[in-house]
Amino acid sequence: MSEAAQTLDGWYVLHDLRTIDWQAWNAATSEEQKTALDELAKLRAEWTATEERKEGSYAFYSIVGQKADFILMHLRETLEELNEIENAFNRSSFARYTVKAYSYVSVVELSNYMGTPGVDPMQVPEIVARLKPILPKSKHICFYPMNKKRNLEDNWYMLPMEERKTLMRSHGMIGRGYAGKVKQIISGSVGFDDWEWGVTLFSDDALQFKKLVYEMRFDEVSARYGEFGSFFVGNLLTEEAFASLLPRNSGN
Amino acid sequence: MSEAAQTLDGWYVLHDLRTIDWQAWNAATSEEQKTALDELAKLRAEWTATEERKEGSYAFYSIVGQKADFILMHLRETLEELNEIENAFNRSSFARYTVKAYSYVSVVELSNYMGTPGVDPMQVPEIVARLKPILPKSKHICFYPMNKKRNLEDNWYMLPMEERKTLMRSHGMIGRGYAGKVKQIISGSVGFDDWEWGVTLFSDDALQFKKLVYEMRFDEVSARYGEFGSFFVGNLLTEEAFASLLPRNSGN
Amino acid sequence: MSEAAQTLDGWYVLHDLRTIDWQAWNAATSEEQKTALDELAKLRAEWTATEERKEGSYAFYSIVGQKADFILMHLRETLEELNEIENAFNRSSFARYTVKAYSYVSVVELSNYMGTPGVDPMQVPEIVARLKPILPKSKHICFYPMNKKRNLEDNWYMLPMEERKTLMRSHGMIGRGYAGKVKQIISGSVGFDDWEWGVTLFSDDALQFKKLVYEMRFDEVSARYGEFGSFFVGNLLTEEAFASLLPRNSGN
Amino acid sequence: MSEAAQTLDGWYVLHDLRTIDWQAWNAATSEEQKTALDELAKLRAEWTATEERKEGSYAFYSIVGQKADFILMHLRETLEELNEIENAFNRSSFARYTVKAYSYVSVVELSNYMGTPGVDPMQVPEIVARLKPILPKSKHICFYPMNKKRNLEDNWYMLPMEERKTLMRSHGMIGRGYAGKVKQIISGSVGFDDWEWGVTLFSDDALQFKKLVYEMRFDEVSARYGEFGSFFVGNLLTEEAFASLLPRNSGN
Amino acid sequence: MSEAAQTLDGWYVLHDLRTIDWQAWNAATSEEQKTALDELAKLRAEWTATEERKEGSYAFYSIVGQKADFILMHLRETLEELNEIENAFNRSSFARYTVKAYSYVSVVELSNYMGTPGVDPMQVPEIVARLKPILPKSKHICFYPMNKKRNLEDNWYMLPMEERKTLMRSHGMIGRGYAGKVKQIISGSVGFDDWEWGVTLFSDDALQFKKLVYEMRFDEVSARYGEFGSFFVGNLLTEEAFASLLPRNSGN
Repeated sequence: MSEAAQTLDGWYVLHDLRTIDWQAWNAATSEEQKTALDELAKLRAEWTATEERKEGSYAFYSIVGQKADFILMHLRETLEELNEIENAFNRSSFARYTVKAYSYVSVVELSNYMGTPGVDPMQVPEIVARLKPILPKSKHICFYPMNKKRNLEDNWYMLPMEERKTLMRSHGMIGRGYAGKVKQIISGSVGFDDWEWGVTLFSDDALQFKKLVYEMRFDEVSARYGEFGSFFVGNLLTEEAFASLLPRNSGN
Repeated sequence: MSEAAQTLDGWYVLHDLRTIDWQAWNAATSEEQKTALDELAKLRAEWTATEERKEGSYAFYSIVGQKADFILMHLRETLEELNEIENAFNRSSFARYTVKAYSYVSVVELSNYMGTPGVDPMQVPEIVARLKPILPKSKHICFYPMNKKRNLEDNWYMLPMEERKTLMRSHGMIGRGYAGKVKQIISGSVGFDDWEWGVTLFSDDALQFKKLVYEMRFDEVSARYGEFGSFFVGNLLTEEAFASLLPRNSGN
Repeated sequence: MSEAAQTLDGWYVLHDLRTIDWQAWNAATSEEQKTALDELAKLRAEWTATEERKEGSYAFYSIVGQKADFILMHLRETLEELNEIENAFNRSSFARYTVKAYSYVSVVELSNYMGTPGVDPMQVPEIVARLKPILPKSKHICFYPMNKKRNLEDNWYMLPMEERKTLMRSHGMIGRGYAGKVKQIISGSVGFDDWEWGVTLFSDDALQFKKLVYEMRFDEVSARYGEFGSFFVGNLLTEEAFASLLPRNSGN
Repeated sequence: MSEAAQTLDGWYVLHDLRTIDWQAWNAATSEEQKTALDELAKLRAEWTATEERKEGSYAFYSIVGQKADFILMHLRETLEELNEIENAFNRSSFARYTVKAYSYVSVVELSNYMGTPGVDPMQVPEIVARLKPILPKSKHICFYPMNKKRNLEDNWYMLPMEERKTLMRSHGMIGRGYAGKVKQIISGSVGFDDWEWGVTLFSDDALQFKKLVYEMRFDEVSARYGEFGSFFVGNLLTEEAFASLLPRNSGN
Repeated sequence: MSEAAQTLDGWYVLHDLRTIDWQAWNAATSEEQKTALDELAKLRAEWTATEERKEGSYAFYSIVGQKADFILMHLRETLEELNEIENAFNRSSFARYTVKAYSYVSVVELSNYMGTPGVDPMQVPEIVARLKPILPKSKHICFYPMNKKRNLEDNWYMLPMEERKTLMRSHGMIGRGYAGKVKQIISGSVGFDDWEWGVTLFSDDALQFKKLVYEMRFDEVSARYGEFGSFFVGNLLTEEAFASLLPRNSGN
């Protein structure tokens, strides 16, 4: 038996990806569209208020390509709150114009491979801030789930702790090279969803996502042990961008 | 040929995961919604009565994320009873507002790797209680199906009995470390469904699911031999929680 | 090149799994429901008559869980007859209340690994009876498709004939241990469907399916070389059971 | 780098598999059904005329099981012609009663592993006839796509040309053993569709498909290097068979 | 850790594949069809104008087979522009007659394995032209996504830079052998979509796609390290071809 890595866990996370049902939206009256957009605006106001109270955070981005039209990423203290957010959205009239595309349940996680012995990490304000982060309003988002492989001799979980530590240190160096360019949020999903981690990247330059993920792919942690799910990339949905994505009918 | 492990088998289990059809629910009149909720309440009353007679048990939880909106877990003496529960649900008017999401058929199982020679396990009341368990009302549920791998040199079923016993003993020690925090129900599904086992965990702290499953992943039984299906995690659906998930229309 | 195993082939088999469209059934008038059930009863009468003439056989079982609501298993002399049965069902008004779930095309097969040299097996009445079997009315059915693996050093088709014979003999011994408890029908589907074999088991005790398949999984034939598709398990649909599964509306 | 095999390429091929939408067919008036069948008959007349001009060929078979209800196989000189056939079918009123099930794009191919040095194969009438074949009206069809594996040490494309030649020669011998019983058409789809080849077999005895494919599976080319997609098997749709598959409503 | 390859990145690319909803198109009035085609024509005029300003490019081809009916390939300077194109299409009335089939997000990429030391590639006009290409109007298109494998000893990302360089050089030679016959556009999608690269080929002779991809498959880069997604092949949709694909109703 290999020694298990310790993790620090913060806010629960829900990635909620949806598609616009254009058929339904186009068939709606101007009045119905107004009601739907008003209800969405009300939900956004609640989410923003929670964020201002530092009791959670959220991000709203479009997704490029057919996999989804937008992503809502929510962070909260408990799984019950995430569930309530999801159900409130489903009950809203805006939801009637959307179709579920993909979702992901996880918890913000810091791996302790690089912890300092003798220091209680939950007393380090910078660590607490990383476990309960307020999401940035960067221009772009990139989200993907991933596993560490367990395939014959390429088995991350059979490696001795020391080797995993050394590998993760070199892996972390690549991430650090993108400091100021890409913000990374790692969330753990073992026991919560179908992959072991979710990776959410934020940047003002989408090309940095490609550079970072590609550079990491040559690092042994990804090259030998990384297993990746679907990648979702998109643009910040400011109020203007959202109004342009989903304009109201002019007439009836 | 490797010696087959002996198992003790208890109640049959049906995990029944469904999604709310919000379109249909919203389109229903207040009267139709009342009828649907009344029929569901009647079914729940029957399931509770059966549980009180100790002839079965059931659990009702929400599921977080888009995979499903809720899970019904039923335990019964026979496969016919499970089938009848399923069909009664399908015939109810409540079912008209739901869509099937996933299901799993299995039987509560205790592996006999750790049996005491010379003792008939079915005479041990504690074992019988574990084979025909009354499900707890913990705040959270976690369910996932799994296999033991048969991939070239990582082949559980080709290991000698003694080696499997040793490995399972160490694996079981991890589970015991969570006694009082996580309740585990293992059900076998070889010959019944697409994976070999279903694992259902109950806890008042959802983070314990992640800790337990992650710690086990470094243990050789999971690291080399575990193969996992989808993970479903959710919150107890008390009457209040359910009423808040699916409120009735006020008007017509 | 490894010597190919010889097989004896009997009746063609169609496993036809369907789901009830409850929405449509509930929306039907009592009259429409009566017509649908009458047409199904007429088809069943035809299938029974064919079985009585020993020109084919059929089985009708419910399926537990969401994969399907029922399975119809048909055996006939030709592929054209199977196709005609399928089309007659599709044209019936009962079919309007069902949705396709899964199907499997194969032919009853006896492998000749254990043949007696110098004996023409088609002259042995017991063998002919096994190739053109009348299906039992056991309480439970279990159906799953399977392959023999061809993965690097675990490649069944690269083994010498003698080794396959030895392995199959030991494998067959396990099956024989369930004589009187489980009836097995093996059908070959190479060239007909997506897996190489279909296995259909009948028993009055569903737990025997689990015991048999689990015990076999430790045998090298399954442990190293078996690859399994979906498992479907269910209960005999007698007239009463079927009437209880799909009751007619009382009113209009 | 291994020497690439040379191929001879003939007509482009479209396998077009569809399912009957019974709901829509049953809801159609007798008049609408007549129009649909007339339009299909007109398309078939055009396809037959093309075949008589030796500018293409087509086959029309039912498919047994739920994967599809029928297959249309078209051969033409250009990809544009195949596309036009497909679009003409989609525009026809008959298409309104069908649902797409599967399709495959390829080109009739003869591998040159067995070519005679110094002979231009396109001057050999028998070879040209095999590249632009008129499809037989055998009682049964079998279609499946396949790859040659590239998995670690089982990598067809890393074998030296000489070894591939030797293996293909022995593989071809099996096929020859079925001369007169099974007609094989191999079409290449590298760069056109998701598998590397399509295999279409025709026979008056469906059991020969099973015997041929099963015997080949023990040959190293299939045993070590073959990777198979879905198998589709069916019966010739003569005018009578088709009228029996899809009878017109008698009334309104 | 293996040295990461450097890439040069140009325009963002969206491959947008859709299917005609014939049911909806046939049900539309002549007036509605006219509006839809007019709106599509307006979008095409905008795309053409952008291409003429050299601020982007686009291609419009049919797809043969059931995977899709047509592909729109768009190139733009930013991810926001691609998203806006997609949304404008979704909002158009033409979109109401289409169903999403597949999409791919990437960025035109030149690998720097063959770069000349000391030369800034962005100062080489030929390289800039290849990074921001105006798509040809060839008769045929072929599109497929691909990965480099990371499977045990067949792991591209664990190879030393020098070995990858040598392998890519030999691989590039095959492509060069098709100069004048096939135009290749490679786009990178690490961090953007589910595969690592998209390959788009243009040719006036569709058979050249098969010859090129098949010849490459014997080259070690593809044979050992290539992993391929779905292949889509189609014909140029000139105005005539498009009018023939989707003719307007004559009447009402």
